[in-house]
Amino acid sequence: MQQPAFAYVRHGQTPFFRLPTRDVGVDAEAYRGIQAVLLGVPYDGGCTHHPGARFAPYHVRRVSATTQSFHPSHRIDVFQALRCVDGGNAALPPFAPAMAREILQQEIGAITSARARPFVVGGDHSITLPVLRALAEAHGPLAVLHIDAHLDTSTGELWGDAFHHGTPFRHAIEEGLLARDALVQVGIRAPWGTPEEDALVKGYGGRILSPFELQDPRTLARELRGHFGGRPLYVSIDVDGIDPSFAPGTGTPVPCGLTPREVTSLLRGLAGCRLVGMDVVEVCPALDHADLTSLLAAHLIFEGLALAALAGE
Amino acid sequence: MQQPAFAYVRHGQTPFFRLPTRDVGVDAEAYRGIQAVLLGVPYDGGCTHHPGARFAPYHVRRVSATTQSFHPSHRIDVFQALRCVDGGNAALPPFAPAMAREILQQEIGAITSARARPFVVGGDHSITLPVLRALAEAHGPLAVLHIDAHLDTSTGELWGDAFHHGTPFRHAIEEGLLARDALVQVGIRAPWGTPEEDALVKGYGGRILSPFELQDPRTLARELRGHFGGRPLYVSIDVDGIDPSFAPGTGTPVPCGLTPREVTSLLRGLAGCRLVGMDVVEVCPALDHADLTSLLAAHLIFEGLALAALAGE
Amino acid sequence: MQQPAFAYVRHGQTPFFRLPTRDVGVDAEAYRGIQAVLLGVPYDGGCTHHPGARFAPYHVRRVSATTQSFHPSHRIDVFQALRCVDGGNAALPPFAPAMAREILQQEIGAITSARARPFVVGGDHSITLPVLRALAEAHGPLAVLHIDAHLDTSTGELWGDAFHHGTPFRHAIEEGLLARDALVQVGIRAPWGTPEEDALVKGYGGRILSPFELQDPRTLARELRGHFGGRPLYVSIDVDGIDPSFAPGTGTPVPCGLTPREVTSLLRGLAGCRLVGMDVVEVCPALDHADLTSLLAAHLIFEGLALAALAGE
Amino acid sequence: MQQPAFAYVRHGQTPFFRLPTRDVGVDAEAYRGIQAVLLGVPYDGGCTHHPGARFAPYHVRRVSATTQSFHPSHRIDVFQALRCVDGGNAALPPFAPAMAREILQQEIGAITSARARPFVVGGDHSITLPVLRALAEAHGPLAVLHIDAHLDTSTGELWGDAFHHGTPFRHAIEEGLLARDALVQVGIRAPWGTPEEDALVKGYGGRILSPFELQDPRTLARELRGHFGGRPLYVSIDVDGIDPSFAPGTGTPVPCGLTPREVTSLLRGLAGCRLVGMDVVEVCPALDHADLTSLLAAHLIFEGLALAALAGE
Amino acid sequence: MQQPAFAYVRHGQTPFFRLPTRDVGVDAEAYRGIQAVLLGVPYDGGCTHHPGARFAPYHVRRVSATTQSFHPSHRIDVFQALRCVDGGNAALPPFAPAMAREILQQEIGAITSARARPFVVGGDHSITLPVLRALAEAHGPLAVLHIDAHLDTSTGELWGDAFHHGTPFRHAIEEGLLARDALVQVGIRAPWGTPEEDALVKGYGGRILSPFELQDPRTLARELRGHFGGRPLYVSIDVDGIDPSFAPGTGTPVPCGLTPREVTSLLRGLAGCRLVGMDVVEVCPALDHADLTSLLAAHLIFEGLALAALAGE
Amino acid sequence: MQQPAFAYVRHGQTPFFRLPTRDVGVDAEAYRGIQAVLLGVPYDGGCTHHPGARFAPYHVRRVSATTQSFHPSHRIDVFQALRCVDGGNAALPPFAPAMAREILQQEIGAITSARARPFVVGGDHSITLPVLRALAEAHGPLAVLHIDAHLDTSTGELWGDAFHHGTPFRHAIEEGLLARDALVQVGIRAPWGTPEEDALVKGYGGRILSPFELQDPRTLARELRGHFGGRPLYVSIDVDGIDPSFAPGTGTPVPCGLTPREVTSLLRGLAGCRLVGMDVVEVCPALDHADLTSLLAAHLIFEGLALAALAGE
Repeated sequence: MQQPAFAYVRHGQTPFFRLPTRDVGVDAEAYRGIQAVLLGVPYDGGCTHHPGARFAPYHVRRVSATTQSFHPSHRIDVFQALRCVDGGNAALPPFAPAMAREILQQEIGAITSARARPFVVGGDHSITLPVLRALAEAHGPLAVLHIDAHLDTSTGELWGDAFHHGTPFRHAIEEGLLARDALVQVGIRAPWGTPEEDALVKGYGGRILSPFELQDPRTLARELRGHFGGRPLYVSIDVDGIDPSFAPGTGTPVPCGLTPREVTSLLRGLAGCRLVGMDVVEVCPALDHADLTSLLAAHLIFEGLALAALAGE
Repeated sequence: MQQPAFAYVRHGQTPFFRLPTRDVGVDAEAYRGIQAVLLGVPYDGGCTHHPGARFAPYHVRRVSATTQSFHPSHRIDVFQALRCVDGGNAALPPFAPAMAREILQQEIGAITSARARPFVVGGDHSITLPVLRALAEAHGPLAVLHIDAHLDTSTGELWGDAFHHGTPFRHAIEEGLLARDALVQVGIRAPWGTPEEDALVKGYGGRILSPFELQDPRTLARELRGHFGGRPLYVSIDVDGIDPSFAPGTGTPVPCGLTPREVTSLLRGLAGCRLVGMDVVEVCPALDHADLTSLLAAHLIFEGLALAALAGE
Repeated sequence: MQQPAFAYVRHGQTPFFRLPTRDVGVDAEAYRGIQAVLLGVPYDGGCTHHPGARFAPYHVRRVSATTQSFHPSHRIDVFQALRCVDGGNAALPPFAPAMAREILQQEIGAITSARARPFVVGGDHSITLPVLRALAEAHGPLAVLHIDAHLDTSTGELWGDAFHHGTPFRHAIEEGLLARDALVQVGIRAPWGTPEEDALVKGYGGRILSPFELQDPRTLARELRGHFGGRPLYVSIDVDGIDPSFAPGTGTPVPCGLTPREVTSLLRGLAGCRLVGMDVVEVCPALDHADLTSLLAAHLIFEGLALAALAGE
Repeated sequence: MQQPAFAYVRHGQTPFFRLPTRDVGVDAEAYRGIQAVLLGVPYDGGCTHHPGARFAPYHVRRVSATTQSFHPSHRIDVFQALRCVDGGNAALPPFAPAMAREILQQEIGAITSARARPFVVGGDHSITLPVLRALAEAHGPLAVLHIDAHLDTSTGELWGDAFHHGTPFRHAIEEGLLARDALVQVGIRAPWGTPEEDALVKGYGGRILSPFELQDPRTLARELRGHFGGRPLYVSIDVDGIDPSFAPGTGTPVPCGLTPREVTSLLRGLAGCRLVGMDVVEVCPALDHADLTSLLAAHLIFEGLALAALAGE
Repeated sequence: MQQPAFAYVRHGQTPFFRLPTRDVGVDAEAYRGIQAVLLGVPYDGGCTHHPGARFAPYHVRRVSATTQSFHPSHRIDVFQALRCVDGGNAALPPFAPAMAREILQQEIGAITSARARPFVVGGDHSITLPVLRALAEAHGPLAVLHIDAHLDTSTGELWGDAFHHGTPFRHAIEEGLLARDALVQVGIRAPWGTPEEDALVKGYGGRILSPFELQDPRTLARELRGHFGGRPLYVSIDVDGIDPSFAPGTGTPVPCGLTPREVTSLLRGLAGCRLVGMDVVEVCPALDHADLTSLLAAHLIFEGLALAALAGE
Repeated sequence: MQQPAFAYVRHGQTPFFRLPTRDVGVDAEAYRGIQAVLLGVPYDGGCTHHPGARFAPYHVRRVSATTQSFHPSHRIDVFQALRCVDGGNAALPPFAPAMAREILQQEIGAITSARARPFVVGGDHSITLPVLRALAEAHGPLAVLHIDAHLDTSTGELWGDAFHHGTPFRHAIEEGLLARDALVQVGIRAPWGTPEEDALVKGYGGRILSPFELQDPRTLARELRGHFGGRPLYVSIDVDGIDPSFAPGTGTPVPCGLTPREVTSLLRGLAGCRLVGMDVVEVCPALDHADLTSLLAAHLIFEGLALAALAGE
């Protein structure tokens, strides 16, 4: 007999997607044989506006519990095809950002050492930098699909610290973590402080698309698939890339965002790419309603896992 | 002088669309001369996840009170063209599902005996089965347009009862209530438990469309109009077929749903079909915000009534 | 070094009060050496009005994670003094109430067989009956402190089933699970259907106190402590016994309830009683705000655990 | 067999307390034999701050539906002892305050002509003036118990109209509608604009009590019962007299309010007084949570009806 | 060094977009040299259904504070190119609609006298009439782009006053404030009371487009740009023109509305038109969630300011 | 004629209590002649659990706008008796806690240099330490009334920083900012991590009272008034000292808190003390409902200002 849909009830606990749990921190051995590790990062110490994303992993886990495992579009049973575990949360010191980055990089390092892929649920967007560092160390410079309302290439000038949730992609470029030509930013639309805000990404061969410029996500996906080729691909989704009506629970919402169908079509069109990791960040449960944003985050992670499942190994 | 728009204020009561009320239960005589009966079904005893749909009829009635009667797209005065009443609620025993189905089937039977059409506001989706039973008894096997995120053709294996809100269309097919070829499911997108979940509907000649496959609802409507021909048509709308941003008040929301404009265009395109009944189910007011979902349900029922008004008789 | 307060972050999971988990169902061996088992019962199939209490265990667990262990009033470290585990949830079939009661009774039986005490987080109040059955089997007729807005001694006449959330104490009395003279109901205030609603409890020597009759909870506690003596005591708290301003997340709120300080004083005054089990029921998260009701439930369970810790063994 | 508790489900409509409805406006004949008429007044055209009380009657009706009829403290079956109807709503023109007052006075006049008592659910507090006018016409100058955070004896100077929700008791005094010595205001606590704000009431022999001065509501009730004697008594409850934690849904909340238990004790202590009418006003559903304020309003009206039921006739 | 993004923190006050403030009322001198004046109009005395829009200016100001000034699509620094001030609120008497209209017309007159453009944040839609009066006085008959769910050409017959939030465009036409042929209404979709509701606008050469008829907003914008030519253009946006999922905080929501991307594309396509003023009305914060609607209103005003900045002078 | 109550509408801005604004930072000259400065501190970088208090000053300002100035209990016109200004917000760097403390201490120093008293609206409780430093520098060791659920004398051991919102009073004692014997903590009730948590305060002669130990706030106030004598008194109110039903908008709520009436009575009883400053902290608007907590904060600040007004000078 099939496993009852309400089996998750038994535990009382709510690991991501009712997956087995593994609680390892920086011990790669514990992940041996695992292909994907879901990791919560309850940290919002890099937030410049409305904090609260530190609570996202708890809520995304809870609402993910009822997700079934067969993906009707890719026609693959994600959790049969891919050995996944819930690796728990990275326990980052809340008032020591540099140490937090260090610890997270090591935890991601443990995952890549086990040849598994990290699927990270943030936390604010500042957590993406240490993830990129660990992945670039393992795979070399990365191609990145970045969904966001903001470029996230600010300097630290405005906030007194060069490492906050508006800066990860500046550092990633400056540190050589990203492959030239291979940063694609979709959903960008918030007003800028200066006319040159896109200079860094443009100068690095990157591509910036507002929701108004996105015609057909399937066409874009086809282009990107060709463009990315066999390069290691990281997907970073700030939920504010999506319109606030679909994702009200976020700290810096901007009207006129992408729709979940657009983002999902884009992701599905990347089947065949070499996905090495993914994050969904900036879910702020205190501002959410009826778990809309947490549900959307769980959905997006599931779409990423499906891509990994299709790629196999 | 025109009836004041705020006349509904006088009553204090809030019948659907300020319609006259008729409280008959299973006495068809009382409906003589009536063409459409709006019926609330405050029952969620078939809900496997988040209950609360039992309160929907009260809220849908309340928010429907300000709807004017002239439909500017079809250019018809719905309540002048169609003799409608609010038939009250079916008073179903909350802990006796079999008896609940029996009573509801009889109440719908009273409506069809009077040659009127039922427009049902649920309640959870399990209430659709007894409605289909009564309508098939009156009209023979039905064509069905089913808007939903889920196929609703589960078995009872998982939940210990074969009759719950995830099973009505399995029973409807197995009991021969539906015309072969004539079940069209639109909005389907939730992950499945097994690869064969669509086998029953496909094997019965049904059609399944995800929101990603829906190109133009007007084109689809044109196809369906031809396909359904003069067959008796039932429309069943689970509000979770629509995206949770538009319908947050529902118990099993799934991202990437249809938009209200798509569903409305689809319905409007069915003008000329022989609509024999309709339901809108799974509105859960406790999870709603600013009455969005109740308003949407009232709107959809009004669109269905407009189709009936156009058909006349 | 002291365990960091943010250690719960590591797991990602949220067992009650960061306790070790044990997932045993009906296997008493697994509880050997344990003194208290926290059990979630995500079941609201006995609810006659607003359902949703099935989700309470998830939220009470989540908010309990930050509770420290030293009780500053009793001056005892609760989790050092009492060996506690989170036993997970009882996985009850949602549509088969009789089977649900049977399973829950067995799970409580496993706890009592291990000489541990159950601390149950509901679920609706119908779950108290099987708990009382298992405890009375282990300890003989019980003394009960029952906090509620309602007597919960209804018959099944109104709702077509004799076992729902308005009837557990009728059955408990009729089945001889309660000691004569030893049912004390505090907080009772909802209007009744008939003048005789208190006859059953009064006839059994029970005591009924409205919030208006409660003068000083400490005085009442002193009386009760004498009255209960060494009899096995069960505490059953329906959160609607407390005023809806403090506990908005509940299905049948009634104005003019007890305050959390009154209930807490009453519980603290029972130090020395022989507490054999406890439940907190009717927390409905969908109607809660800012986790007020879930926090209150966690607090009340902690107060109960403190009583057990003081009693030792 | 007793009437099923869920009978109200049948109608779908939600009259106050499931009472029979009567929709008469100014036709006193229709109320013949009735002792109490519940009237909704969906009007907030007198609101100076946060409007929305116009929607209160719909929500108070809805949540009142589950109230049983036997009052366990007074030990009387309220709806058996008192012939009550839901008289619907007064349909007041939203932009014509003077006409609105005129119509409402006539509707109350129809009730008093039938020798019935009005129980009014507002609406903002400006509606109390026409009610007092009609009652004083029928009974002569009235004793009034006024629960409020504010004195409601402002002038029109500040807002450009002498008739708004901050002025009813000024007009009532100046028009001679109130008996000298017989206005008692309880709950008053909002800061004043000038030191003389209490002069009018004090000069008329009235009494003003802040929540800080209220020692024991039962003692106060005893005093008032003696003081009011056989004079016709009107009770006017602005829900902001009660603390905003219990009544968040109101337009001008003020911290440190009365508790529902205090107000209820005060009302219960008035048993024996000659209650000729009552209102509960300033419930603003858009600001409410989990229906707390609407439930409280229904409770207070029920307490008032119980007083009338005890008085009989 | 660039001005810190959190400089607005210093003040504590929250002028629109952190602009300098100017508090002048009807003194045009104070606006000398200013090109755009943002004006709040906290008035909802013309609301026939759910009031509360009087609080919108406070919330739109607050959420506008984080908007940067460079518009990445038009590639213009809006606040460098256009001299803007926050003119405070028009302080309208809440119970004296005629006087309110008079005052507002004078305040707008002061703005036009200074050759500045008004950008108005309502308030309900009744405030648009006095704005149009003042602008037509300054510029002659206006072209108008009107975004709304409703035609707003009702008569006063239903509500007892000819001037409420459902009538401004009737009066504007009848008073000759609008240029013939030059009223374009987009988003119109609410059911009508009679079949002739569009007669007035159609008879005046106006154009009415439902969301279902809007194919490509860029195409429409191109047409309108040609059609409006050099005529003075006013843009009036009732947020209920946009779908309630994006704008839940509004008093008369109607499903199937425009998306923010459609409206924004339409506005951006009007670059080159001679914009003389704009309003965004009917934002009701009490019904909003996570400031979605206030954020959207701030965004739309910013888009309007960008059009003015492009036009220069 | 009296200033219209709606005059604050004119500005659109919302200074605390409609007071004049002064924006000086560390320039004491600007405060010359002022007796009380209201200062917002939008900083929550010291929060260990649910952040968001950085937004409190905006909301407390907004809701304070309708407060009248005459205190009916003390019978004093607060803003006539005391020259008050809104000093804006301290603009603290969000990621540099040490610098933040330094800046805030200087800003408070500017206030004390002008011989004015600071009334601070936080922000999290970590902001109290620099305020105490500045005040102790001006006045010598302080007496402190501290309302809180927590002792706030933690070490930095758990969180990796010795300066967070759980530590201000440890530092204040260790730095000699507080007078021996003169720290009184009321409302303390959260469980502790170790049995010795009260040792520091007790060893310093402080007094700790849980809500269960508070009998009559007026009696306590009388004692404290004698005890504090002429010593400079600081009042620090963490809103979580008050029960979460009254103050849901806070980051670490604990059931069984004080009531607003108790706290208000305690404050009023301190009339005659030499109040040198006050703060209200930990208001988290994202978790609030209907502005309850912001309103309460404004009320408490007003009570503190009244004490200062009574003291004069």
